[in-house]
Amino acid sequence: MKYSNLNITVVGLGLIGGSYAMAIKNKIKPQNLWGIDIDKDVLEYAKNNVIIDNGFTDSLKPIQKSDFVIICLYPGLVIKFIKGNMQHFKPGAIITDTAGLKASIIEEISSILRKDIDFIGGHPLAGNEGKGIKSASEDIFQGADYLIIPTSKNRRENIKVLNNLISKIGFSNIIEMSPKDHDRMISYASHLPHIIAVSLMLNPIVKDKKFYTGGSFRDATRVANINVNLWSELLLENGGNIFDQLEIFEKNITKIKKLILEKDAAALRGLLAKACKIKEEFENANPTH
Amino acid sequence: MKYSNLNITVVGLGLIGGSYAMAIKNKIKPQNLWGIDIDKDVLEYAKNNVIIDNGFTDSLKPIQKSDFVIICLYPGLVIKFIKGNMQHFKPGAIITDTAGLKASIIEEISSILRKDIDFIGGHPLAGNEGKGIKSASEDIFQGADYLIIPTSKNRRENIKVLNNLISKIGFSNIIEMSPKDHDRMISYASHLPHIIAVSLMLNPIVKDKKFYTGGSFRDATRVANINVNLWSELLLENGGNIFDQLEIFEKNITKIKKLILEKDAAALRGLLAKACKIKEEFENANPTH
Repeated sequence: MKYSNLNITVVGLGLIGGSYAMAIKNKIKPQNLWGIDIDKDVLEYAKNNVIIDNGFTDSLKPIQKSDFVIICLYPGLVIKFIKGNMQHFKPGAIITDTAGLKASIIEEISSILRKDIDFIGGHPLAGNEGKGIKSASEDIFQGADYLIIPTSKNRRENIKVLNNLISKIGFSNIIEMSPKDHDRMISYASHLPHIIAVSLMLNPIVKDKKFYTGGSFRDATRVANINVNLWSELLLENGGNIFDQLEIFEKNITKIKKLILEKDAAALRGLLAKACKIKEEFENANPTH
Repeated sequence: MKYSNLNITVVGLGLIGGSYAMAIKNKIKPQNLWGIDIDKDVLEYAKNNVIIDNGFTDSLKPIQKSDFVIICLYPGLVIKFIKGNMQHFKPGAIITDTAGLKASIIEEISSILRKDIDFIGGHPLAGNEGKGIKSASEDIFQGADYLIIPTSKNRRENIKVLNNLISKIGFSNIIEMSPKDHDRMISYASHLPHIIAVSLMLNPIVKDKKFYTGGSFRDATRVANINVNLWSELLLENGGNIFDQLEIFEKNITKIKKLILEKDAAALRGLLAKACKIKEEFENANPTH
């Protein structure tokens, strides 16, 4: 794969899109790296800081000439963007996205996609607490996991191209899974911790002048500093999986409550020990990068 | 206060007790720093590493001569230790503890304490993920918060002495509160995040080979690596407060579930924004050290 012959476009230069552009510019060095965004100031900033070669608010020109299009928008807007540009994609183009939900996007796109282009869903497990291109950094990708959600319609050689690009910009593990498995897994690995963090902040006790914390409360609520528009979309879209997983979580809370109520020290120690062991195994299997 | 004339004893040389001993030895330099522990190897280790001047499995000798006794044991053992040594404390001695629960200890001790000695409850909001003296480090105290739980029986001058010692070993904020307020606050700031972390680990999905996480799950479950004996005691002892706070937490979860179910995007965004604002205010009021 000779990247020096390719035109690549990143759609949506926020935290993730901006980080992609930086990483691609420095590590892939394509013939052209274009950015599309609705915000002229963002495009100006990206161009002035040599994050992109050129920026466009109108997608037509860059899309017609791009071999590779990386859509870094909220889930709903990914669908809207592909639909709106369907007739303009370059024949043979590979399109991918970075949205945190996959089933609805892949189902909707698969059924309407032109036969001569390929859409491969992706989800980088990377980010930071910032928002927008000024928080972007290619460092957030280094050593992180990347989920690829292929379908039977995808060409294997295109998946390989995507894999290669993702490795080159710094991701360590690239894992393929189905849209259904992805959305179920992510409801627990990400959506629940966010719902918990938000719920923990909504108790008036937090505002008490004499509310002091060690690390556990701070860690559990780190992600309460949330991107409101993105997260309301993710939670609404993945409601079914979230409800299933919340039910399991709430059952475990109830189990602990019951043991406290019954003052059953031996059984409580047993349950805590079980969780502790699972945590240790999890940490061994998933060491921090 | 001339520390060079004082004998200080630390009871229980675990992670916290060991850290106290190190900090006192280096920053207070008392006439004698003694350690009491049931484990001879721990005392040997502490003496060999110059963490204490001398170690005892039998508390009689050091307790009779100590001006200051810092009990770093689980809540139930604090009460047991004071009761068992009641007749041996040096007249005028100041006794403090570091247990994470205060109401039961202070109530029980206050009613039986000799008139010529003083017990002032304390709770350092410090620690690390290790266990035992080999994980001890005086660094864990630097810049951390310290809660003091005085009662009307305590002599003001003794509270000042304790305050002074705590500042000297590295704590930044020393806050006084009532036993009731302490246990209620700590149920939310610490016990709930631990219950949540444990409950999150108990879902079989975590053991799935294709369970991948970004930072949010890892942060929310950091403390699931729990000291089983200590934590079963804390949770059982503070059940009332925990139930009250869990009820509020579960109501907030239910609120989010309801908005997802009703697909009420505007109200969900509103609720997320509210939590986000509280989080920002909390971080501004409680900057990380």
